[in-house]
Amino acid sequence: MIIIGEKINGFIPKTLAAIETQDAEYIRQLAKAQTKAGANYLDICAGTSQELEQQTLEWLIGLVQESCDTPLCLDSSDPQLLLDMRGLVQRAGLLNSVSMETVDDGRTKCDVVFPVIAESKWGVVALTCDQNGIPDDPEIKLEIARKMIDQAAETGIAPERIFIDPLVTTLATKQDSLANFTEAIHLIHAEYPTVHFTSGLSNISFGMPFRRAINTQFLALAMAAGMDSAIMDPTSPSMQATLHATNALLGKDEYCMDYLQAYRDGMFEATPRT
Amino acid sequence: MIIIGEKINGFIPKTLAAIETQDAEYIRQLAKAQTKAGANYLDICAGTSQELEQQTLEWLIGLVQESCDTPLCLDSSDPQLLLDMRGLVQRAGLLNSVSMETVDDGRTKCDVVFPVIAESKWGVVALTCDQNGIPDDPEIKLEIARKMIDQAAETGIAPERIFIDPLVTTLATKQDSLANFTEAIHLIHAEYPTVHFTSGLSNISFGMPFRRAINTQFLALAMAAGMDSAIMDPTSPSMQATLHATNALLGKDEYCMDYLQAYRDGMFEATPRT
Repeated sequence: MIIIGEKINGFIPKTLAAIETQDAEYIRQLAKAQTKAGANYLDICAGTSQELEQQTLEWLIGLVQESCDTPLCLDSSDPQLLLDMRGLVQRAGLLNSVSMETVDDGRTKCDVVFPVIAESKWGVVALTCDQNGIPDDPEIKLEIARKMIDQAAETGIAPERIFIDPLVTTLATKQDSLANFTEAIHLIHAEYPTVHFTSGLSNISFGMPFRRAINTQFLALAMAAGMDSAIMDPTSPSMQATLHATNALLGKDEYCMDYLQAYRDGMFEATPRT
Repeated sequence: MIIIGEKINGFIPKTLAAIETQDAEYIRQLAKAQTKAGANYLDICAGTSQELEQQTLEWLIGLVQESCDTPLCLDSSDPQLLLDMRGLVQRAGLLNSVSMETVDDGRTKCDVVFPVIAESKWGVVALTCDQNGIPDDPEIKLEIARKMIDQAAETGIAPERIFIDPLVTTLATKQDSLANFTEAIHLIHAEYPTVHFTSGLSNISFGMPFRRAINTQFLALAMAAGMDSAIMDPTSPSMQATLHATNALLGKDEYCMDYLQAYRDGMFEATPRT
């Protein structure tokens, strides 16, 4: 599993408070704790007004790169800003996100991003949505994914650099949220076996009590369906226990070595946070 | 999900201690607590020496029937004893278990049990094993299941009365334990869509630390594969949270009503046990 640590995101109230009070130490600790917990990338999202977004991202990127060597997943709805921010970043990571949505000049986000990163090692999170929003039908998600992956290939970006996010809906309002998500994975995987699949999965449990039960079981069942990445909180003991147990049960952890190591490292139990 | 409460079993050290000290109140509490937690059946297993098994079962059956109306799942390796014990039982439940293993007179456990219960409402837990032990190959598990289900049908026992247990192996020693189990379910379900599937699932985590992570994720992934029953501890908050979240994610809980009710009933949180 490729873990994208979700916590440095201004849409999370505590992180926004740290941004607003310029609490640099809090941001550094989020970077270190998620890295220690095994994050492969750290998502960096400002969550501020558009006017403050660039300077906030610059501040966050600087702090995180002081604190750890983990590659970044730059997160903004503005594709040009994502491209601009790369100049501050020491090693290639992910741009979160592109989609078939158009921007002001009528080009899609893919049109904006792909040619610029083609020759680099940057990857992208690619959402299966377009000007019509998020499709209900997994077949339409496949069509959108196909357009993005084919366009990427034409530009010189291999499927291995693309993390498709089939955009999970909220279980409380759509009973078939999981089935819709896994069906999209199956359809896309059948055509593009080397593309990655990720999800900002906590949307699944929006509006429900005891969200961690829904989030952890969504993680397990989506992993079983082929999701090989998640945008999640790697410092959560229940997410770590679920992730490692599921990986072992899916036959992807020889002799359960990773599970046993994570257990010995105390990752399954709540511990005092620094 | 059809839950068979596992706790009144002399192979569990605390329960054995209660049996040995004739702690009737402890047994009554196990019956009440599992019933309150939603058990559809209560497993009753002596776990004593063979000499003491009958009198222990009689004592346990009496105590449990004083305490609740939940149907029983009588549990012994001796099929004749299972048949004999039915006389003490107020309502038809399950006999746990039959298989293609032979007993002293050369008949299989199915041969012993099926004709006697044919005209009743009793069901059986049927293990996919025979004189050669537990097969590795899911295809052989299918062959054994086919023999048992076909023989039952010839005797007048419908597939709906049979709970096939494909006998999960231990993950610590077999990396493909889950895949083997779910493949057996798929093969058997394809031929017999109305048979139930159950599992004494805690065997999956034998020898591993933090067993509840493995047990809960096995439950979720096996449910996704079609397991519709489990022999488990219904008073476990982590099992209940997993079961209800998975059921909702699998689209089997309209408007998440069962999930919300279980949450409101406090079933997802550890509470002081009586």
